[in-house]
Amino acid sequence: MTILWWHAPVAELNETARLCAASRQQQLTKPAGSLGQLENVAIRLAAMQGREKPALNRPWISVFAADHGLAAAGVSAYPQEVTFQMVANFSHGGAAICVLARHIGARFEVVDVGVAGDTTGLKGVVQAKTVNGTTNLLDGPAMNADTVNSALAAGREATLRALAANADCFIAGEMGIGNTASASALACHFMDRKAEDMTGAGTGLDSAGIQRKAAIIDQALTLRRADCTTPLATLAALGGCEIAAMAGAYIAAAQAGLPILVDGFISSVAALTAVRLNAGVAHWLLFGHQSAELAHRLVLAELGALPLLSLGLRLGEGSGAAAAFPLLQTACALHGEMATFAEAGVSDRPD
Amino acid sequence: MTILWWHAPVAELNETARLCAASRQQQLTKPAGSLGQLENVAIRLAAMQGREKPALNRPWISVFAADHGLAAAGVSAYPQEVTFQMVANFSHGGAAICVLARHIGARFEVVDVGVAGDTTGLKGVVQAKTVNGTTNLLDGPAMNADTVNSALAAGREATLRALAANADCFIAGEMGIGNTASASALACHFMDRKAEDMTGAGTGLDSAGIQRKAAIIDQALTLRRADCTTPLATLAALGGCEIAAMAGAYIAAAQAGLPILVDGFISSVAALTAVRLNAGVAHWLLFGHQSAELAHRLVLAELGALPLLSLGLRLGEGSGAAAAFPLLQTACALHGEMATFAEAGVSDRPD
Repeated sequence: MTILWWHAPVAELNETARLCAASRQQQLTKPAGSLGQLENVAIRLAAMQGREKPALNRPWISVFAADHGLAAAGVSAYPQEVTFQMVANFSHGGAAICVLARHIGARFEVVDVGVAGDTTGLKGVVQAKTVNGTTNLLDGPAMNADTVNSALAAGREATLRALAANADCFIAGEMGIGNTASASALACHFMDRKAEDMTGAGTGLDSAGIQRKAAIIDQALTLRRADCTTPLATLAALGGCEIAAMAGAYIAAAQAGLPILVDGFISSVAALTAVRLNAGVAHWLLFGHQSAELAHRLVLAELGALPLLSLGLRLGEGSGAAAAFPLLQTACALHGEMATFAEAGVSDRPD
Repeated sequence: MTILWWHAPVAELNETARLCAASRQQQLTKPAGSLGQLENVAIRLAAMQGREKPALNRPWISVFAADHGLAAAGVSAYPQEVTFQMVANFSHGGAAICVLARHIGARFEVVDVGVAGDTTGLKGVVQAKTVNGTTNLLDGPAMNADTVNSALAAGREATLRALAANADCFIAGEMGIGNTASASALACHFMDRKAEDMTGAGTGLDSAGIQRKAAIIDQALTLRRADCTTPLATLAALGGCEIAAMAGAYIAAAQAGLPILVDGFISSVAALTAVRLNAGVAHWLLFGHQSAELAHRLVLAELGALPLLSLGLRLGEGSGAAAAFPLLQTACALHGEMATFAEAGVSDRPD
């Protein structure tokens, strides 16, 4: 692995399979286009899997957890210790993403990439941290070069575990009190927006809390502007270890040709970061949902994303992606199993 | 069964179970409200099932098929014989709804409530018709009193079969070339709208076709206005046998306390018709999706509905409801299996 492994090209899509799948969709016994986004999803998965009839059976979920120095500035409705407590909840199977993982038959792991607390006693938590939380953005860059490289690599390692387990869809989730603020700061920089456009309620701030959070993000953006010389330096300056890990995981998945199902706002900012580091990653991204966090809409638009769900979710952990996963399977089932007009003896519309 | 069985009251919701479920949602290890619509769905299902932790395991799908005399006026992109051909496709398991039924483990049946062709030779098609298609609305009321009563009863019979099979969620689908026109006419009358507001592409008309269809619907509304003296008379004058059957099925399901998952535009108009016949039905309706048919949005708003999906589907057959069904199960799993703050030792936000 070279230091710049994330620049290596992503896997190529199979255009023949895409065309075969698109042609098949036209022949199925339904008005053309009447399955809407489910048709597009099936066709994209065909191109990703290199076969006319794609299928997804082995989803993988890695939840990356880390703490944020910026939490000390009061950007969250919850205290920082909740990150550690939720890692324990993941370890014991009680969190939303654990229920969803069981529900969709996903392999599930939690990766400590920077929790401010010792998680080594928690069963099944993958240890991959170099820091106990990032530096407060108001005091300095969130991560130094070693830390951001390690976090990206920790994401890549998760993808390699998924590949070793023969996973066919990669979902990344996150936990980290303060991480919507970090994600907002990254989105502001990458999309040249003001903090007020990109700052939302996170886990449940009121409007005064949101204004305070936006002011802190603006301050951090001003203080860190000189550090943000490249996408990697921006990630280090404004990001979090879990956001860097997700970006690394997405890049490695795209390089390996493993379809990615992106979760909500923070995951989408990690995906945007991955695309800034390696533009080809975009071809391997599917989007599970549009969250209640208003800025998510802007990030999705920047990525040209058409999310599957819009249920007002704002939990993170990978929950929206896991909730959307059955729709990918539904799209594959319809695409693969419906009869064609010829097979069924049904009249197609006169052209 | 009296002639006016549809006026009998619907089953009562269990308010104690609703309150218990709402209270439980507040205690689960997530920011309050962060599971969005999935929280509301779980709470509503708790009230329907009378238990704090609802579950759905035995979905039932009845697809009602019938022809429309109005099809002769050229309101569809497809010829009328496609109704019969698609019934054959349902019988052979090749249609979208057949794939979805297998995918979600639903019991599935097709009911001929007025197809213009003999379906007795098709395996598994329930025979329940009194006419070979409705009368063209431009020539007279679509159904006479006997026909509309029979169609409503055919829907009720389907619900009784679902109950006998111990189903816990009822999905109705429809097939009938020309039935978006009939549904538009009903929606216009019930919502006091013009045809242009309520007329869409159906299975794929172009804009000239949509204008022509709207003009025909306006003409039919004018010709049939005097017939539309009551909701039942309106259903008879403007409806279709499959729309009446769906309305009857929904009413019977609500009376029996069987949760209903409504499909797209035509199903929603059937639900609106059911609510006009018996207002209490509204308490038992869940909505699977918002379809690509623009008028669907207006009908959903009239019903105060919050659909789960919005994927640009416009196929009918019950497909959008069946595609959404796994989300109901997801909502139940999250609600029933997540740890509470107390169980997990996680700090709730300071109030």
